[in-house]
Amino acid sequence: MKLATLPDGTPDGRLVVVSSDLRRCVAATTVAPRLQLALEQWTRAEPALRELAAALERGQAAQAMPFDPALALAPLPRAWQWLDGSAFQSHGDLMQVVFKLDKLPTDRPLMYQGLSDRFIAPGADVPLPSEDDDIDFEGEFGVITDAVPMGCSAADAAGHVRLVVLINDWSLRRLAPVEMKTGFGWVQAKPACAMAPIAVTPDELGDGWRDARVQMRLEVDLNGRRFGAAHGGAMAFGFDQLVAHAAYSRELVPGTVIGSGTVSNEDYRRVGSSCIAERRAIELLDEGQARTRYLAFGDRVRMAARLEDGRDGPFGAIHQRVVQRG
Amino acid sequence: MKLATLPDGTPDGRLVVVSSDLRRCVAATTVAPRLQLALEQWTRAEPALRELAAALERGQAAQAMPFDPALALAPLPRAWQWLDGSAFQSHGDLMQVVFKLDKLPTDRPLMYQGLSDRFIAPGADVPLPSEDDDIDFEGEFGVITDAVPMGCSAADAAGHVRLVVLINDWSLRRLAPVEMKTGFGWVQAKPACAMAPIAVTPDELGDGWRDARVQMRLEVDLNGRRFGAAHGGAMAFGFDQLVAHAAYSRELVPGTVIGSGTVSNEDYRRVGSSCIAERRAIELLDEGQARTRYLAFGDRVRMAARLEDGRDGPFGAIHQRVVQRG
Repeated sequence: MKLATLPDGTPDGRLVVVSSDLRRCVAATTVAPRLQLALEQWTRAEPALRELAAALERGQAAQAMPFDPALALAPLPRAWQWLDGSAFQSHGDLMQVVFKLDKLPTDRPLMYQGLSDRFIAPGADVPLPSEDDDIDFEGEFGVITDAVPMGCSAADAAGHVRLVVLINDWSLRRLAPVEMKTGFGWVQAKPACAMAPIAVTPDELGDGWRDARVQMRLEVDLNGRRFGAAHGGAMAFGFDQLVAHAAYSRELVPGTVIGSGTVSNEDYRRVGSSCIAERRAIELLDEGQARTRYLAFGDRVRMAARLEDGRDGPFGAIHQRVVQRG
Repeated sequence: MKLATLPDGTPDGRLVVVSSDLRRCVAATTVAPRLQLALEQWTRAEPALRELAAALERGQAAQAMPFDPALALAPLPRAWQWLDGSAFQSHGDLMQVVFKLDKLPTDRPLMYQGLSDRFIAPGADVPLPSEDDDIDFEGEFGVITDAVPMGCSAADAAGHVRLVVLINDWSLRRLAPVEMKTGFGWVQAKPACAMAPIAVTPDELGDGWRDARVQMRLEVDLNGRRFGAAHGGAMAFGFDQLVAHAAYSRELVPGTVIGSGTVSNEDYRRVGSSCIAERRAIELLDEGQARTRYLAFGDRVRMAARLEDGRDGPFGAIHQRVVQRG
């Protein structure tokens, strides 16, 4: 099942069920007007949403309409909680190089709590204060949970992964190591993230969801040129483990979004990167200096997933432009 | 003006205006049924709430009722954003001692993003996974803002401080340095916070609000014995600076809660501490070993503010018991 959110003048937008070919949709008003509400009552909402989806596929959904992903908001335009992991080892290794950090003294999942009161629409401009902050993107996969009890095991956590999404975690690299060195995590270095238009149930992903990981490539284009196509399956910890980690000493509120961290592979020289900082680290390693510049206002970033058999992934595309804040 | 939230079966509860003596209240239903809504429309809501407050003081509020702080929820039972500072230098100094940390390499405000989907009611039990996690409290003052634009100056930020609150930031000390050393900030080490029952507008604090700091002592009692009474005025950065710091690369959503960090004073041997970890640091310094144990299930913590002239502070009390999670 594929879900999206269309604008209706409210911060949460209105939930729609989208056809498998992404061409049509039907409002879920009678089941749950907003995705947050559906997640709060998932056991009740899911079967009803699946009935709507089936009717839509059969061409029998009353009031079906064309779906235009360019109009979509983030599937969850705001969330009560966003916990972002960093589960790709090669990303961590390269960040150590580019930011001259010590090796992180942990074999536990890495995770920080980020801004969740807004997930930017997939096609919206991204206003930021200054090019001098070294503006970067970070392509990630993420999951959205229903209510997870405190102390949930990884085995049980897998069943609380209700939706899978694609996220661009905008980052300001000048500030990231400064904040990181305090141990407090990131505030200024992590403005609002963006989300691709379609949230997908794990079953809909087929072979694209295995071992609680997204088995797809994340294709990233910068100003129309391919920048990276790393594979989501390389996470050192699966989303089940990330959810359990997050729930150790808190109940997870329905609609909690958990991120994979920047998608990155050991053969980064071949597959490219999902953020500029990684490419700069590779240049440092190979050429002694970083050449690729961070973003300038007006630069455009596109992200979409690619299935292992070559077909388009199910999330639709994030395609955004960074702009100077007003 | 004093505001509180009473339970009504919803996660946000219902907003009430409380009399200055904390004995009576009146529902704000006609103005804004929930505090979050009032903060989203503060320019419209504030004068109407003040009219209700004035009528309540005159004994002319229709449907006024007794106010029982023991029934109150947190004034904001959930928030879209909780950013906790650490603005008391002596707290940072003592944390370095007890956790054997290096001096933090920054002269900027320290701040992390924490769990905001729930602020625990001031009298509710606090369920936690294990005594082995070294359970601790942290007494803090906090402010709640309306909408703050990205790039807001400290001078302008002062005007966005709409309410002042008292917070207990529950902390798990076994996990805190482990997570801190990753640079990612705290997830497992920072379960949900609690809030005292009354949120107060800065003007209502009189001399208790000066230089964007709460000029009161925070009295902390552990199992009925005084543990500390540090003064809130000793912040190295005022709340205006903390709000501006938070808003550098993000708009602050109305209802953003910003914390002072653990209230702590340079003369900590005289005034005591607002968390156990600080007292353990002082014992390490003075006696070579930490004697005071962290909390056991069943232990009770009380926090309330004391005005400089000796009168009770306006926030009411947090009085909680830690319990084993079910």
